[in-house]
Amino acid sequence: MKETPDGAEIPSHVLMLRAGLISQVMAGAYTYLPLGLKSLHKASQIVREEMNAADAVELLMTAMCPISLYEQTNRVEAFGDVLVKATLPRGGKKVPIVFCPTHEETITDLVSRYVSSYRQLPITLYQIQTKFRNEERPRFGVLRTSEFIMKDAYSFHTSLESLSETYNKMYAAYTKIFTRCGLPFLPVEAESGPIGGDASHEFMILSPNGEDKVVHCVCGYAANTEKAEIGPTGTSSIDPVETKPITQLATPGAHTVEQVCKFLKAKPVKLIKTLIYLADGKPVAILVRGDHEANENKIRRELAASKLELADPATIERVTGAPVGFAGPVGLKENLPIWADHCVRNMSNAITGANENEAHFINVNLGRDFQIEEGRFADLRNAVEGDPCPRCSQKLQITNAIEVGHVFKLGTKYSEALSAKFLDSDESQKTIIMGCYGIGVNRIIAGLCETSYDDSGLIWPVNLAPYEVVICPMKVFDENMMQLATKLHDELTALGVDCILDDRDQRPGVKFKDADLIGFPLRIVLGEKGLAEGKVELKWRWDKDPVLADLDGISAQVAALITQERQTQSRFTASKK
Amino acid sequence: MKETPDGAEIPSHVLMLRAGLISQVMAGAYTYLPLGLKSLHKASQIVREEMNAADAVELLMTAMCPISLYEQTNRVEAFGDVLVKATLPRGGKKVPIVFCPTHEETITDLVSRYVSSYRQLPITLYQIQTKFRNEERPRFGVLRTSEFIMKDAYSFHTSLESLSETYNKMYAAYTKIFTRCGLPFLPVEAESGPIGGDASHEFMILSPNGEDKVVHCVCGYAANTEKAEIGPTGTSSIDPVETKPITQLATPGAHTVEQVCKFLKAKPVKLIKTLIYLADGKPVAILVRGDHEANENKIRRELAASKLELADPATIERVTGAPVGFAGPVGLKENLPIWADHCVRNMSNAITGANENEAHFINVNLGRDFQIEEGRFADLRNAVEGDPCPRCSQKLQITNAIEVGHVFKLGTKYSEALSAKFLDSDESQKTIIMGCYGIGVNRIIAGLCETSYDDSGLIWPVNLAPYEVVICPMKVFDENMMQLATKLHDELTALGVDCILDDRDQRPGVKFKDADLIGFPLRIVLGEKGLAEGKVELKWRWDKDPVLADLDGISAQVAALITQERQTQSRFTASKK
Repeated sequence: MKETPDGAEIPSHVLMLRAGLISQVMAGAYTYLPLGLKSLHKASQIVREEMNAADAVELLMTAMCPISLYEQTNRVEAFGDVLVKATLPRGGKKVPIVFCPTHEETITDLVSRYVSSYRQLPITLYQIQTKFRNEERPRFGVLRTSEFIMKDAYSFHTSLESLSETYNKMYAAYTKIFTRCGLPFLPVEAESGPIGGDASHEFMILSPNGEDKVVHCVCGYAANTEKAEIGPTGTSSIDPVETKPITQLATPGAHTVEQVCKFLKAKPVKLIKTLIYLADGKPVAILVRGDHEANENKIRRELAASKLELADPATIERVTGAPVGFAGPVGLKENLPIWADHCVRNMSNAITGANENEAHFINVNLGRDFQIEEGRFADLRNAVEGDPCPRCSQKLQITNAIEVGHVFKLGTKYSEALSAKFLDSDESQKTIIMGCYGIGVNRIIAGLCETSYDDSGLIWPVNLAPYEVVICPMKVFDENMMQLATKLHDELTALGVDCILDDRDQRPGVKFKDADLIGFPLRIVLGEKGLAEGKVELKWRWDKDPVLADLDGISAQVAALITQERQTQSRFTASKK
Repeated sequence: MKETPDGAEIPSHVLMLRAGLISQVMAGAYTYLPLGLKSLHKASQIVREEMNAADAVELLMTAMCPISLYEQTNRVEAFGDVLVKATLPRGGKKVPIVFCPTHEETITDLVSRYVSSYRQLPITLYQIQTKFRNEERPRFGVLRTSEFIMKDAYSFHTSLESLSETYNKMYAAYTKIFTRCGLPFLPVEAESGPIGGDASHEFMILSPNGEDKVVHCVCGYAANTEKAEIGPTGTSSIDPVETKPITQLATPGAHTVEQVCKFLKAKPVKLIKTLIYLADGKPVAILVRGDHEANENKIRRELAASKLELADPATIERVTGAPVGFAGPVGLKENLPIWADHCVRNMSNAITGANENEAHFINVNLGRDFQIEEGRFADLRNAVEGDPCPRCSQKLQITNAIEVGHVFKLGTKYSEALSAKFLDSDESQKTIIMGCYGIGVNRIIAGLCETSYDDSGLIWPVNLAPYEVVICPMKVFDENMMQLATKLHDELTALGVDCILDDRDQRPGVKFKDADLIGFPLRIVLGEKGLAEGKVELKWRWDKDPVLADLDGISAQVAALITQERQTQSRFTASKK
């Protein structure tokens, strides 16, 4: 396509459509056209090779699964509308199924039926298979779709040590995979999120259009926003400004930080947000600065709670004495434990809710108007740009990123729920310990396209390119030229080079534009003048100009160039690390 | 597994479960375990290679598809409960989708958007992709499941000649595929069925547990039951028995052939079934012998009708004068056109409905009691064992079979419905002509397992075997032996032989039994005594006894044997043709 297609906004989507790699079937579902599929197959094969090398064994589960397995793990509710469900009419009955968004349930059920002894462990199983996840608003082309191919691996262990060993092997395999794919990736520390468990890393591609955010530091520290810790802030004392008398003001209709700030003509940084949570069912108040976001994982960990949720309006009204939107640390109706983010310590003459309907206090000061027990200051919020690094105290940066892989230590969440047990060497029955490891195969392709292009189109590393070499004869009706081009194509193919012959009856300009748009790494041009001198033109996609090469021995020369490029992919690994 | 698993009835199901190739997720959905998946991948790769060689181009469509495309082709109704549907909640709306049972709609929609000129045609596109078809009663292991992998190809043409050319190429490719897979296949003529169109062949594996039936003759004629023609029968005249006077009898409650026969103590062969059809909406009567089955495709063709369906009870009552179950050619209330199967011509003193509630005639005779116009005798029924061959008049045989492939000339059914048009060289707008070509990849595996086994287990051809070679060292704690076994494994792998080392600490008997059950083509045994003499044992799965071979140079020898076997697969092609 010459034009930017309607509805396509980000480079990978625009370029994949324009280059004819994908075509939309419906919102969130894309056909991989022949060129796109070739790249997808190459990515899959790299993943397969590295997984096999890391002693993972491939199998293939079905997309369909009885919903009962998801009920046993409480994931029908956890996934909500993301879970694609169907009902199969069978012999007068209705059989409810899901189309798996991931396969913890199926694999754990399988392993529980085949593994019974510690002698059979550890084992790592994986598949490259199609997943279904309904997206409320599918967008960004193939970065976020409702049907996609995932490599999902699951490991099974008798001990946490064994899990760690496999986790490290998978981490190393992922590093190899993304390096071979030429991706500028960054492994970051991550919360395990709704999937549960102990430890996890996400493999991110830094990209302005990524939907995730990565917090990182020049020192090497990197984590996603949910996980990123914040280093010690200068927490000495209250700003040395004059404290003013606390005053209650009517703030009719002002519930949110934005509304209150607008009403009082103040900046969010002057506000203390008071959030009422239920920590294992018991109400607590959490204070964070108005321009900050509370981080529920940090809060849950700090409070050592196993379950944390925002309190319902009735509870809020009961404990604060006011409807939602007017809570504050001064004059709470019930005597709640109060925790505060470190930054709250530095605030003076702050604005808070007055625990009264449609009213706020101004000039609230910690120590004078309310107290926080010393052990109840903590890092309870998401990091923001410029926060100190937890490792080196330099300023943290925040960059958008695309998640392409994720490794988790799952623990026993699924094996417990689905009774996957083993008899240990001491004859006792124990629950199998699990890990899981996912790669979005389509995202490898989209991530590459999102990060490797120029004004003319895509730029593929040879390892993922739809074809490594494009051969462009300038005149398809010149018999001699076409014969040479065809011979070159066949010789290169025999030498294991993946090449395509552009035998269309098109002008050179059109062929070059298309080759650049699709982004084949190496272009070989056969022209009348060059051939008369026994020469052809070679041009790497990322070089500005072609070089002349002898037609004599050209196949061997090109094969050698491609072999070398496969190993180094210098453009893609050196420049981006 | 040592025991036959519960619920498994046919050999392929029993053996695939016992050998650990598959595992059930739910009724009609099976995980391919590592060994089964290896065979499935090999089958897919053979299919891919031959499709590419036949100039088909691979792409990958999604399982999800908006239901509107199926509404445009009227296939929501045609598929009925087979169609797996779901509703996706998106932005407050409900988006109805289907999980494609096949991809005519998706591909035709795609091609309509990319192809506009005759210059772009012909083109053949294919995918190897997961299909979903709800099975009312899933059975027979992986022979009939609700989720399976299909290679589906679609070709697009400007003319019927071009379609025929591609059809023949696909037919030839299928022949190569099934030969390489070692399957005892038979291409048979087929009706195109609900998919519509002109001409088609099914590729069948003759097997007692197949759900389809194949009509075939020693002369080479072969067709499925819907399609099989019946050669000329001895149609000279009415049997030379004395014709008796027609008599009406009360037959209370006897509606069906079975009930009438029981009531009148007669054989079905004495009965003339009178079926009232609506041919393009107009009622007609069709007569077939009581023990025969009417063939609606033959009837539709004979009547040159585009739509044929059994008449509704109201129409039957109106045209016959009686409720359903009592129609007959004598005394119909309305003057319907009557067609009769050839066999009806030979019947005398027959039983028919009396066109009156709960009444039949006996001793009905053609010519005397009712008339059929001369042009209205035809072949209107399914062939039965012993019918004359349409080619050579020898007796037809009927055998159960498993369908593994199907090639269709589709015509314009889908391109018409979805407006897939092209501008022809004469500047006129025309509808694209299509063909479609399917292979059930899982059925290749199941079909092989259904036809190639003995009392000890499966017998794989090297081209599909999970591993070509199994290496069995007799003592895994004998360091020297294990070192040799490992060296052999690594050397064979380097030589491109797909081999597995059975390094389990198990007795020789257990290893041999498992190797036979799984069915690896070649077994190499390393024993203490043999090694002392510099010998190892080689045994083909289909041979009774092993032969001794020199350890020295064994890798090269085995690699040569396997290479040869890959090309000939003599056991699988010679014996079964």
